[in-house]
Parts: sequence; C-alpha cells; structure tokens
Amino acid sequence: MYRSNNCGELRSSHINKEVTLSGWVQKVRDKGFMVWVDLRDRYGITQLIFDEERTPKAMMDQAQKLGREFVIQVKGTVIERDSKNPNIPTGDIEILVSELTILNTALTPPFTIEDKTDGGEELRMKYRYLDIRRNPVKNNLIFRHKVTQEVRNFLSNQDFIEVETPYLIKSTPEGARDFVVPSRMNEGQFYALPQSPQTFKQLLMVGGMDKYFQIVKCFRDEDLRADRQPEFTQIDCEMAFVEQDDILDVFEGLTRHLLKEVNGVEIEKFPRMLYDDAMRLYGNDKPDIRFGMEFGELNVVTQHKDFKVFNDAELVVGIAVPGGNSYTRKEIDKLIEWVKRPQVGALGMIYSRCNDDGSFKSSVDKFYDQDDLAKWAEITNAKAGDLVCVLSGPTDKVRAQLSALRMELATRLGLRDPKVFAPLWVMDFPLLEWDEDTERYHAMHHPFTSPKPGQIELLDTNPGEVKANAYDLVLNGNEIGGGSIRIHDKATQAIMLKHLGFSEEDARAQFGFLMDAFEYGAPPHGGLAFGLDRLVAILGGQETIRDFIAFPKNNSGRDVMIDAPSRIDDEQLDELSLKLNIKS
Amino acid sequence: MYRSNNCGELRSSHINKEVTLSGWVQKVRDKGFMVWVDLRDRYGITQLIFDEERTPKAMMDQAQKLGREFVIQVKGTVIERDSKNPNIPTGDIEILVSELTILNTALTPPFTIEDKTDGGEELRMKYRYLDIRRNPVKNNLIFRHKVTQEVRNFLSNQDFIEVETPYLIKSTPEGARDFVVPSRMNEGQFYALPQSPQTFKQLLMVGGMDKYFQIVKCFRDEDLRADRQPEFTQIDCEMAFVEQDDILDVFEGLTRHLLKEVNGVEIEKFPRMLYDDAMRLYGNDKPDIRFGMEFGELNVVTQHKDFKVFNDAELVVGIAVPGGNSYTRKEIDKLIEWVKRPQVGALGMIYSRCNDDGSFKSSVDKFYDQDDLAKWAEITNAKAGDLVCVLSGPTDKVRAQLSALRMELATRLGLRDPKVFAPLWVMDFPLLEWDEDTERYHAMHHPFTSPKPGQIELLDTNPGEVKANAYDLVLNGNEIGGGSIRIHDKATQAIMLKHLGFSEEDARAQFGFLMDAFEYGAPPHGGLAFGLDRLVAILGGQETIRDFIAFPKNNSGRDVMIDAPSRIDDEQLDELSLKLNIKS
Repeated sequence: MYRSNNCGELRSSHINKEVTLSGWVQKVRDKGFMVWVDLRDRYGITQLIFDEERTPKAMMDQAQKLGREFVIQVKGTVIERDSKNPNIPTGDIEILVSELTILNTALTPPFTIEDKTDGGEELRMKYRYLDIRRNPVKNNLIFRHKVTQEVRNFLSNQDFIEVETPYLIKSTPEGARDFVVPSRMNEGQFYALPQSPQTFKQLLMVGGMDKYFQIVKCFRDEDLRADRQPEFTQIDCEMAFVEQDDILDVFEGLTRHLLKEVNGVEIEKFPRMLYDDAMRLYGNDKPDIRFGMEFGELNVVTQHKDFKVFNDAELVVGIAVPGGNSYTRKEIDKLIEWVKRPQVGALGMIYSRCNDDGSFKSSVDKFYDQDDLAKWAEITNAKAGDLVCVLSGPTDKVRAQLSALRMELATRLGLRDPKVFAPLWVMDFPLLEWDEDTERYHAMHHPFTSPKPGQIELLDTNPGEVKANAYDLVLNGNEIGGGSIRIHDKATQAIMLKHLGFSEEDARAQFGFLMDAFEYGAPPHGGLAFGLDRLVAILGGQETIRDFIAFPKNNSGRDVMIDAPSRIDDEQLDELSLKLNIKS
Repeated sequence: MYRSNNCGELRSSHINKEVTLSGWVQKVRDKGFMVWVDLRDRYGITQLIFDEERTPKAMMDQAQKLGREFVIQVKGTVIERDSKNPNIPTGDIEILVSELTILNTALTPPFTIEDKTDGGEELRMKYRYLDIRRNPVKNNLIFRHKVTQEVRNFLSNQDFIEVETPYLIKSTPEGARDFVVPSRMNEGQFYALPQSPQTFKQLLMVGGMDKYFQIVKCFRDEDLRADRQPEFTQIDCEMAFVEQDDILDVFEGLTRHLLKEVNGVEIEKFPRMLYDDAMRLYGNDKPDIRFGMEFGELNVVTQHKDFKVFNDAELVVGIAVPGGNSYTRKEIDKLIEWVKRPQVGALGMIYSRCNDDGSFKSSVDKFYDQDDLAKWAEITNAKAGDLVCVLSGPTDKVRAQLSALRMELATRLGLRDPKVFAPLWVMDFPLLEWDEDTERYHAMHHPFTSPKPGQIELLDTNPGEVKANAYDLVLNGNEIGGGSIRIHDKATQAIMLKHLGFSEEDARAQFGFLMDAFEYGAPPHGGLAFGLDRLVAILGGQETIRDFIAFPKNNSGRDVMIDAPSRIDDEQLDELSLKLNIKS
C-alpha cells in the first residue's frame, strides 16, 4: 500500500494518527537542524517535518538531498504545527516522518510547477505532463470531467440514450475539409473522420431512438486559427417528435442545470432573440448581453443634412459609451485609430459628447445642431456623461465594426465579468448565406436544416431571405451551441441540395443513404450540438480552450510533446497503396 | 406539441384522458367496420381504435389506408379495451382516435420490424436505421448506455477523472497495424489513430492525475475476423501509487457493481488464478469456470506401459465429461472426428468409459488395466457414468485442443448458461511470448508492462520464463479486461525495449517522450482496459458484439449502409500530397 491518506485530507482531528503518504516534493526548506518538505499530490499539499532531535541522521541527510519533483513515500505521525498556515486546508498539521522512501528521482523541471509558472506556452506544451501537475491545468481537467458528468446524468435522467456513432465514415466535400483515413483492405479507398455525427444522429431518429446524445470527438482539417483545434469535442443531441420550442426548453434546462451545479448561478428563463434583431441591436449573431450598449440606428436623424459620409452610407449606427465623455481628445483619437486598424476596418468614427449640463459636443458640429445630437443620444440611450460613437457604411460591414468596438469598450470598462453569465437564444437564422468566393449560396448551418414552414417557395425567388428553423445558444458573447429542426422528407431534402448546387448524381452519391432513409418513415426531428471545449472554458470563467484540453495541438496542428504527425515508413505506405507526392 | 404521452405508458388509470401520441404504424387490423392500429415508439405499443359508429368516414378511410411504418400523430381518448392483452403493459386500454395526422409515409420496409425478423444480416446492415427500430437491437443500445452510465458514475464516485486523450497521434509499428491520417498542413506526414490511449494515460499518471478513466474509441487495422471491428470501444483506466492488488480490488468492485445493477446478480469475491494454473487446469488463459471439467494431467499414470502415442507425448491430459458414458460408440466417433477437424487439429482421442458398476472400458484396454483407468478417473475427477477424454502431444497444442473440446462439450451439455456469471482474475502472465514468424520475443501485453520484481535479470538468460505484473479479467470464458503494473523508470523501460528488438534510435524516436517523462518524477502506476463491446454483449447474455454497436462494419471493414470507405477526388489527394499506387 503506497498511501493511507492523500495529501489534501489530514486535519487536526487526525493528530497522533500514523499515516502513509506518497507524492511529489513541491518544496524543501532546509534550516540545517530542521527540514520541512511540502509533499504534493492531486488533492493538496501536506507539510513533512524532519528534525535533528527526532529524525535519524541518515534520514535527515536523505531529506536534505530531496530535489523538486522527486516522488517519495513517507510514513509518520500527524502532529500539530507550531506555526499554522491558514491558507491551506492541511495547514494545522504536519507529518513527523519516521520512514522515507524515494520512489523515483526527478530532473529539475524545465519550468516551475506553480500556479504562476515561468514556463512559456511552447515549453509547457512540450512537457505537458509536467504542466498538468500545475493546479490551473489540473483543476480545469477536473472541472471538465465534472461538467461532462453533469451533462450525462442530466440527459440520462431525461431518457436520452448515449449512442456511439462511427469514427470511420464517408468523406463529403460539403462543409470544412475532412481528415481522411486510407483503407488497406479496400484498395484506393478512404474513410473520413466525422466533422460531426450529423447524418448518423438523424438516422438514429429514423431508427426510433427518439432522444439521443453523445459526447464525441469531431475533426476538421482547417487552417487553424488561434484557439482552434483539429480535433474537438461536441455534446451532440437529437430528438424526434419535437418542435423548436421543445428542443430549446430541454437544452435551456441542461444549461441552467450546469450553471447551477458547477457555477452556483441560478438563471430563470433565457431570453430569446431573433437573428435579425441580434444583428440590428448588436451587429452580431452572438451578442454578449452581460451589458447594454445596444446599437441605435441613426439614418433618419443623420441623413437630412449635408454630411456626405452619412448621406452616402447604407447604415449609420451608434452606441453610447457609459461615462465616455470623460475621455480626453487624445483618448478618443486613439479609439478612432483602433477602429481604423485593418482587423476592424472602419474608415473613421464620428462622436458626440453628452455633457453633464445636457448639451452636446460632436466631431461634426458643422453639420448637426443640438437638436440633432439630442436625437442621437435618445436613440442610442446615451445619458449625460456618455459618449456616442457613430460608424457608417455598408450594413454588414459597419455592424461588424461597431460590434468589435462595443466589445472592446466593454472589456476596457470591465463590463465582461467572467463570473457573470448571460445566456441567450438567437433564433431564425437565415437558411443560406452567399459566399463571395464561390459565388453561390451555402447552407448557413448545414444542408439538413429545414426552412421555416411556408418559406420553401422563396428559395426560387429570394433565397437569401429564407429563414431556417435554426438557433444558437449564446453565452457571454460566445456561441456555445447551435442546432436546427431538420428536413425529414426526401422531396424537401432534394430541393435543398439542388439549391446548394448539388447535381442529382452528387446528391445521390453522398447523401443517398439519408434520402433513402427518409422514405421509410422518418419522424419530424431536430437537435443541437454544444462545443464542449468552449463551453467548459466559459463556465470555468476563461477565454482560451487550450488549457481545458489535456493534450492540445498547436496552431500547425502538431502535438509537440509526442512530435506528431510524423513520417511513416515506405512499407506502410505501400500497404496502403499510396505514394507521397511532395511538391515543396 | 407532437405528443402528450409516449406509446408505453398509458394504463387503465388514464381512462378518459385526452392524449396525443406519435409513432410508427406497427400493424393495421381492418375488419371493415372497425380498424385497430398498433402504434409503436421507443417506449412501447399502444392500440388505436377507429370504428364506423364513432369515427368520421374520412378518417376511417384514412386509417384503412395506413401502411406499415407510416409515421402518424393521433389525438384521442383513452378508453378501456374490450378484450385486454395481458402481454403488453398498455394492454388494458386503447385510444379512441378523434384526430389522425400522417406525419410521413413509408415504403414497405425490406424486412419485418419484429423481434424475429425475416431480414438477413446483410440487409439488416444496409438498412440499419430500420433494424434499430426492432426491440432486440434497440434494447441492446439502451442496455449499452445503461452500462456506460453505471461505469462512469461508479468511477466518478471513486474520484476517477475522465480525461479525453487525443485521436490524432503518432504511428508506432509495435503491436497491430495503425490506421493513419495524412496531414495536409504537415506535408508528407501522418497522424495515427490510437490503438489505445496507453502512453497518454501513463503521461497523465506522470502528470499527477492519479485516477484516470475514459470510455474511448480505439482503432486497429487488422484483417478482420468474425466479430472484430476496426473501431472498438474501451473503458480505459489507470491509477498511480498502486500495487496490483489495489487495481484488482477497484475493478473487481466496478464489475461487481455492474453485475448487480444491470444483471441483478450478486457475486462476492472473484477468484484469482495464476496464468500457469489456468493453462494447466483449463488449457486456456481465459477459462470459462461456470462449469468444472478441469484438466487432469495423466503423464505419470499413462507413460509406464507400451502405448507409444502416450509415451512419446510431452503432455497426456484428460477431462471427465459428466454423463458421457451414455454416448454411443457412434457419438464418440463423431467426437473424435470433431477434435480431428483442422480448426482443432488433434491427431486422435483416447477415451475411457466410467461404468456405473465402477468398472472402466477404454479404447486402449490393450495397454491399460482397470487400475490404470481408475487413476485416470481419479485424476480427472470422473465419476461413475462419466466419460474420460484424453488427448496427447506437445503441451501448448494439446492444451489448446482439449480446451476447445471442453468448451464444445460444455455448450452441448448446456453448461454455459448466459444468465450465469463467473468472473475470474488470471494473473502473472508471461512478460514475453515467442513469435514463430519473426523469430523473436514480443511483449505479451505491451512494451510498458513491468516484469515481476526481481525477475528482470532473467531477461538475459531465460526471457520466456519472466512473469509480468499483468492480469486479465475473464468473464464466462471471455477476456473482458486486461492490464498491468507499468514500468515507471527509464532504465527498465530501455532494457525492455532492447529485449523487444528496438535499437536505441528507434526506441528514442518512438517512445522518447515517454522515457523523458519517466525522468521527471514518474510515480509507480498501473491500470487496465475493458473491451466495452464484448463486456456489454456478455452482460447482455449474448455472444456477438455486432448488435450492441449502433452502426457496425462488416468483415471487410465496410459500412454497407453509407458505403464507406470510398474513393476521394484527385484534388483532395493532391492537397494531401499523395498519389494512389494501385497494384491490383
């Protein structure tokens, strides 16, 4: 037996108990006549004590030579500490060691195993097994486990069945790029790794499985942006015989349960907002509603004067910055520089100060009088002491720009408290979106999303206007889940695929099995998937997902710890009937 | 709202209730003036009734035209049935329908959606979504879910943390063949899909995670035998600061919990048997101990006469077949034919009948007298009325042959009741096994298994004799789990890899990260993995795993429903810097 207790559980009630502990040497303090060792394991830290008077000389020597991260086992007696440490749960006691065994030595770790480490990102990734010893990473992984357990228990209690769908499936060129897996037994053929279990979960509905979920790895071979991973985890769900509201209710219940169980936050009803309203009020389909600063559209109160910039603009839109009138001219100039950065892309910014005396002072006083500016303030909900910031231009662009400004200002103003949770349903997304590159419409969610009842005819005349029974769950400005009511009849699915540019042949080759299934009694169904990595990061009050993943990959899709991907030998390639075709 | 109730829950207490049900048409019985419809969903079957007197003509017509597997919604009143059906839980009531909506039509399914279907294996796989509607498959999937939930809750309650390890890892030629995944972003390089998360779970132990588990897909590109899948699921577990007994206790606890919760079977202590004893007593490292028929080694009581066959044999070994003396000469001849089949491979079989009067009659009476045969009976535990069957030859082969005979006879004798559960730990496996093909030793479990303390020196002199701290959990003659105490120091790991034929360079390239990790304070650790597919099949009282997998692949590794694997287009190959190299 390596231990009778762990390093986090001994208290003064255990005094005089004989115990055996095992763990890592966190710290050694050597006063010569006395040596204290902080012994660490997953559960905490317990102080060990060796002293000249009570410890045999040989053991004393051994204790003095212990290095950081040595793995040791000790036997000893729980005693009361002389100077108690109120900062740790075991701070009232220490262990007077009677036996010391070194289970393994350790080289000096390349970075400190402390909450605030001196290790940079790359070093931490290379030695991830050491990084995981640190509380912040360790606690994130434990937190993730707690979240997934809560998800599973909540859904199981509601009669959902977790069904494993296959990982070796079929490549479909729709959506992102697939990772493919050459088949040795089927020469020249490839499996694909799933981007999601979408079609399988729909087939489970056709199969009568009714309420399905799965916490499942998915794969996308995309050029990685910061904080994207080629493999990621979804909480994937689907229900049959449901309408949109049924699905929203169930998964609102799940999210409410998580907020309560893992964050201790009780939230009653989640607000529901139409996609069009989200775009109009926040310039964004995943608005952060922890704070206000809603958009005010100013066309009618700005386009009656000689200010050409506004008159030419499709949209003139502003927000009120709380307390922003205190900004100096220099600070405002910096803000203007900020919106003109290429990442944001505005051509400029107009502002109007809302003075305490009720007067206004704008950067376009030449064109607009106090009455005009009063209307700006009214429409943007600006109060005395605020600053109204106004952008103008093509609707889509200017909304995105003002949304970026809104988020930046809220961050600066401390309005984005990670301990505050503001969930929001955004509903009625467009079915299709226009893709500039390919000059055709793409499915905004995916090709299986059903149009709103009665709108299918619009597909021929005005496809961009068709709304879908599609919804996202937004938490603190992040999309944490999304889903839709699906098409469940072959005819509608065929129309949809046609409008997405599939020839009948292609549609048959790729989705024939699903279309066939729809002919054998497919029930109405719909579902939703949560991005687990992001969900746990946000519930954990953090922004980056990487430290909620045990072994993440870097931005080139590499695992720098195990050094993957790597070359494989020619024999292996030959067995797969493949040859390299290196161009660079 | 598609339904107020499901099709399995209405009882006589609901009589007069207005309900809405949705589901599939299981059966229509049309008497002209009266139509009954069995409406089915995941939860059961409820009978609907339409009749001339109470149902409008138009609805009556519609009901009469309903086809099998149509998806319908009905509103109606729960009424008492005239003739109750005690065989189903809803058999006391029926629904007098007031509204009927056809939600979807259905083509006639290619096989009947009944517990005993007329569909063959291939058809069922092609239309798996219809197969899943059948109770046997549906219930297996629900059963699987229940088992995994129990596993997760049991382990979580014991402080185990489920950690997701990566799927895109590194190819290692040791063990079975890897499935590989070409990397587009890292030209000419490949990820591998994990055969198991072995090295990652060991790194989690180095990382202090202490108690890990994961229910996880694993992948092996092997030539498929019946009932093998290229992707399969493991319950993967690892613990630090443990000895073999600690691990056995925890996972015996888990298995006991499952047997109790999902099978209602209480089993106290699982027997523990040494590998050498299992081989000696059952000729098998995964003996089915639901029944006896233990081997009796007969060398000392057979090799003192002139029977050359026995005298020349390395091993003479027999079993007693209960009641086998009742077999006719013809039946015994058939048994001899059976052991001589190439799949078993015995050259012949000697037998001795144990007569009721205490005398014996053997096929080798010329060589052995009654005293000799009495010893055979004594050693094989044969009683009056039994038949002693004896095989002889090289130890390994003859044990395998007699084990096959033992299992076959037990099956014929009805001794392998799937409702009886006999778990068994088999311990102290050999560390290495000799491979005839490559003429070198392979790791019997894997290269990370630690030899028994004090046996490492034997590696140089007598490698085949070295035993490992390795163990299997056997249930009803199936290996359902296996594991070991791992090596946790670099030096031992290096010796082990050397003995497995790795050059220092190869060892470095493939396992360098693990060997490095061992230098930074690796704790003693060990673990175990269960094969989930097999486990649920056995707990479910069945032999084949395929019907416990939602979407299994066939023996060529194909998913015949979605038709995968398949060709991918040249553009996709080109992006991956690959060319096909088809030889056939």
